[in-house]
Amino acid sequence: METATLLISCPDRKGILAEVTGFIAKNNGNIVHADQHIDFQKSIFFMRIEWELDGFRFPKSKIEKAFKPIAEKFSMDYQLHFSSEVQNVAIFVSRYDHCLYDLLYRFKAGELPGNLKLVISNHTDLKPVVEMFGVPFYHFPKTKENKLSVEEREIELLEREEIDLIVLARYMQILSDKFVSRFRNRIINIHHSFLPAFVGAKPYHRAYERGVKIIGATSHYVTEELDQGPIIEQDVVRVSHRDSVEDMIRKGRDLEKVVLSRAVRWHLENKILVYDNKTVIFE
Amino acid sequence: METATLLISCPDRKGILAEVTGFIAKNNGNIVHADQHIDFQKSIFFMRIEWELDGFRFPKSKIEKAFKPIAEKFSMDYQLHFSSEVQNVAIFVSRYDHCLYDLLYRFKAGELPGNLKLVISNHTDLKPVVEMFGVPFYHFPKTKENKLSVEEREIELLEREEIDLIVLARYMQILSDKFVSRFRNRIINIHHSFLPAFVGAKPYHRAYERGVKIIGATSHYVTEELDQGPIIEQDVVRVSHRDSVEDMIRKGRDLEKVVLSRAVRWHLENKILVYDNKTVIFE
Amino acid sequence: METATLLISCPDRKGILAEVTGFIAKNNGNIVHADQHIDFQKSIFFMRIEWELDGFRFPKSKIEKAFKPIAEKFSMDYQLHFSSEVQNVAIFVSRYDHCLYDLLYRFKAGELPGNLKLVISNHTDLKPVVEMFGVPFYHFPKTKENKLSVEEREIELLEREEIDLIVLARYMQILSDKFVSRFRNRIINIHHSFLPAFVGAKPYHRAYERGVKIIGATSHYVTEELDQGPIIEQDVVRVSHRDSVEDMIRKGRDLEKVVLSRAVRWHLENKILVYDNKTVIFE
Amino acid sequence: METATLLISCPDRKGILAEVTGFIAKNNGNIVHADQHIDFQKSIFFMRIEWELDGFRFPKSKIEKAFKPIAEKFSMDYQLHFSSEVQNVAIFVSRYDHCLYDLLYRFKAGELPGNLKLVISNHTDLKPVVEMFGVPFYHFPKTKENKLSVEEREIELLEREEIDLIVLARYMQILSDKFVSRFRNRIINIHHSFLPAFVGAKPYHRAYERGVKIIGATSHYVTEELDQGPIIEQDVVRVSHRDSVEDMIRKGRDLEKVVLSRAVRWHLENKILVYDNKTVIFE
Repeated sequence: METATLLISCPDRKGILAEVTGFIAKNNGNIVHADQHIDFQKSIFFMRIEWELDGFRFPKSKIEKAFKPIAEKFSMDYQLHFSSEVQNVAIFVSRYDHCLYDLLYRFKAGELPGNLKLVISNHTDLKPVVEMFGVPFYHFPKTKENKLSVEEREIELLEREEIDLIVLARYMQILSDKFVSRFRNRIINIHHSFLPAFVGAKPYHRAYERGVKIIGATSHYVTEELDQGPIIEQDVVRVSHRDSVEDMIRKGRDLEKVVLSRAVRWHLENKILVYDNKTVIFE
Repeated sequence: METATLLISCPDRKGILAEVTGFIAKNNGNIVHADQHIDFQKSIFFMRIEWELDGFRFPKSKIEKAFKPIAEKFSMDYQLHFSSEVQNVAIFVSRYDHCLYDLLYRFKAGELPGNLKLVISNHTDLKPVVEMFGVPFYHFPKTKENKLSVEEREIELLEREEIDLIVLARYMQILSDKFVSRFRNRIINIHHSFLPAFVGAKPYHRAYERGVKIIGATSHYVTEELDQGPIIEQDVVRVSHRDSVEDMIRKGRDLEKVVLSRAVRWHLENKILVYDNKTVIFE
Repeated sequence: METATLLISCPDRKGILAEVTGFIAKNNGNIVHADQHIDFQKSIFFMRIEWELDGFRFPKSKIEKAFKPIAEKFSMDYQLHFSSEVQNVAIFVSRYDHCLYDLLYRFKAGELPGNLKLVISNHTDLKPVVEMFGVPFYHFPKTKENKLSVEEREIELLEREEIDLIVLARYMQILSDKFVSRFRNRIINIHHSFLPAFVGAKPYHRAYERGVKIIGATSHYVTEELDQGPIIEQDVVRVSHRDSVEDMIRKGRDLEKVVLSRAVRWHLENKILVYDNKTVIFE
Repeated sequence: METATLLISCPDRKGILAEVTGFIAKNNGNIVHADQHIDFQKSIFFMRIEWELDGFRFPKSKIEKAFKPIAEKFSMDYQLHFSSEVQNVAIFVSRYDHCLYDLLYRFKAGELPGNLKLVISNHTDLKPVVEMFGVPFYHFPKTKENKLSVEEREIELLEREEIDLIVLARYMQILSDKFVSRFRNRIINIHHSFLPAFVGAKPYHRAYERGVKIIGATSHYVTEELDQGPIIEQDVVRVSHRDSVEDMIRKGRDLEKVVLSRAVRWHLENKILVYDNKTVIFE
């Protein structure tokens, strides 16, 4: 059953929910999910509403126009998605393969509702793995000097393939501000610590040095500031004095896989709203 | 700011959400929380909606009448609550004191939005504790023979004190079907296992015997069947071969306190809907 | 650095620890790990001790004989392992592929210290996956009628390949008592519930029906009684009324993978002692 | 049954374990717990060993002298404790009462094996609570100006009462370096964040601002650097965009209680070894 989904944010006012649900009901839509949230501190209203298109008065191409007056009345930021539209995905990876394998499997198994179009790497190590799953692999080696020009070629490829979402599956290169702003809120990274603890390099080593009793992983949208983007998901696992750095790395790998794949799934299901460097997850 | 809350369940149909939110909006109510859920398997619609009464067209005493036509149109089961109405609570306890202390503290500290009116026990051991917190203590010793007649006196007391919610804080007596049906979905019990594992007596001992690696606690509404009522909340903690039964009991106590108090809070905040021997928690 | 590991269980008495550690020290062994546990209820002593072979007075082939007098003095059950001996592993699988993929990756990545020699299935669906990873695949279809004779051929293959450990990665056939007793404490199964809750078929459906708030997965050694063997590891994940059976199955898959792989790793690292239908895990 | 416990740390060498266990065995001690750990990175050996004194060749007063040669041979730091010696405890508190209540209950219920001798506060708000539990309450108001002289009077009281352990149960004053060094590794603090995230003031507010999906609490020994001491225990709870700062504070309170009380219990059971600004917990 095909559905439409509206993701809305706007200044909080009386009557928004009634107006939006009224719009769907009056036009004979059957609401299957509705979730709203109000940030009372900032007085912002958020909503995700999904309804069946079967029997809805407007064809897909006309819904946006029909909804526009409501959007304007409440000064809404909104996105309209259809379940029939599947996003195109690119994975960026360097040499660690655990997140890559995990994502390759999940896309192949249909767990993640997206088209995995290609994998980009700054190394060739994982080419055989990617090709084993029948996914095109592109090698873009980078140096300090050529970084910006290589990124331009990457962007060209991503645009040609109409990529909607970029997943950094332990990609060990920092993207330029230009690249990041080109794919605002469409690049998901996995950081192998419980942010904001251990921003930057070698978080497991630093967790070991600090003697923490729990380690974590964090998936977030990439912004210009390293590891400072909106957090999508986090999870943790217990460690003890018995765990060496290698044990932490091993335990962390399982966290990274799960935390990254949850973020990718929610993004592809249009369940994430970003505001104020935070996320609302309509899970 | 005083609010009204509607808890609704009814057969799923088009237009319910629009009609309910429209009712509030047209009458100048400001919705502060709205949450809905559809059980697609059984085709049942659930909703919790809360709005500010300030400026709402109807005074509290007239809201129910005004809402009735909508309720009837959709064959709704519904409850209407006001934030100004605070529920009266009775705790039943036997000899274990950890949940009792925890609840006494939480009510005293204002963490639980209810009037703790009294504590009933089949023993006198915990009288000093209860009185230390300034709460009336009633001793109702029970034997197999006098159980039903003692329960009648308990019910009399509970009715006189207009008790809305009964919390069994490790109460070691099984309530009669008559008692249970008198307070349908208004008796919350804490069971010291991860239900449905280890129904009945001595769950920690049986968990130890079975060699489980995680133990749990479950809060649920009491029904006529032992430990079979709708589950409200569960939580778990890891154990190992190093943990003796006594260690499990100690670890479990912290679980029981937290799991019971969450259930009590959600109930007092009118966040729980019961159907089909399950709960919807609009947390 | 090659090490030897002793896994010991015996009636608890004074002096065991001193005697065992004295044996290693006097013979110039450097202990790198030592862990002991006493079950005071049953008065049983358990120990895992690992020491470096470099410089140790006895060559590997003579250690057992040298240790025997101590073992006899304390009526020990014991196993002696060397880090240089790597166990041979067979995976049994039916049609669900998530645990299979996960294990194939972990063996390939060197996360699991074993030789994955072969995969056996009662279906052919997963043949391409197994072969993609370069592992031999054997198809043994089973019916009620031919089950015992097919098992005999499986045993023949397992013996020829000198398989030490069998991993049931969602294998949907119940093994005969004969098969089970042939590989006592060497068959690890993953059950997709938090045992002892939901023994048997369709645990996620039953968890959904019961309305639990947490679901789990359990890895255990297979015994003659279904889902009653010694539990090795369990883990859980939170669910809510929003989760359909399908959501539970999806969330559960990630649990199953992690819980099964931990059990396999501990087994291959000789960290598990079984007694009294329970496990001691010297993690 | 009275026991002795040795907590040992020393440079790692061959034969330590054999020598220590041999000492106990030869003198007819029955070991009930033994746990060791080696930090291979720093080559340090750690051990906790506990044995029954009944039948042991040396009376309590002579054990230390008898053990000394071994300690010297291996350059050990060690502590010798007897289960009959119960530590004296002082709680420091300001105005938040949740950890205080929790500790008062646990000491009263016998969950924590220590003598709670007194409570010190810089406010008088919690005097009635403390006295309700029959514990002496001391009021030491502090200003920037009088801080050091007030601390001297506190130290005088703590020495007179022979306090072994100080628990900061949300005490809102920073102790001077002099005070801290006087009670090295004997002051336990609860910090209401997942350290090293959100060191310092208002961690819940900052967690809210950062949009984390999990919050935590950390118990640690107090050192001269704020929130930088050796971590004893941590735990976490999930939050979402729905949680306001107040919700985080409420959820956090339950964490703080549990995380603090675990640290206090382990300390009182002599299960913690501190080294290199980290802890080894022989749980």
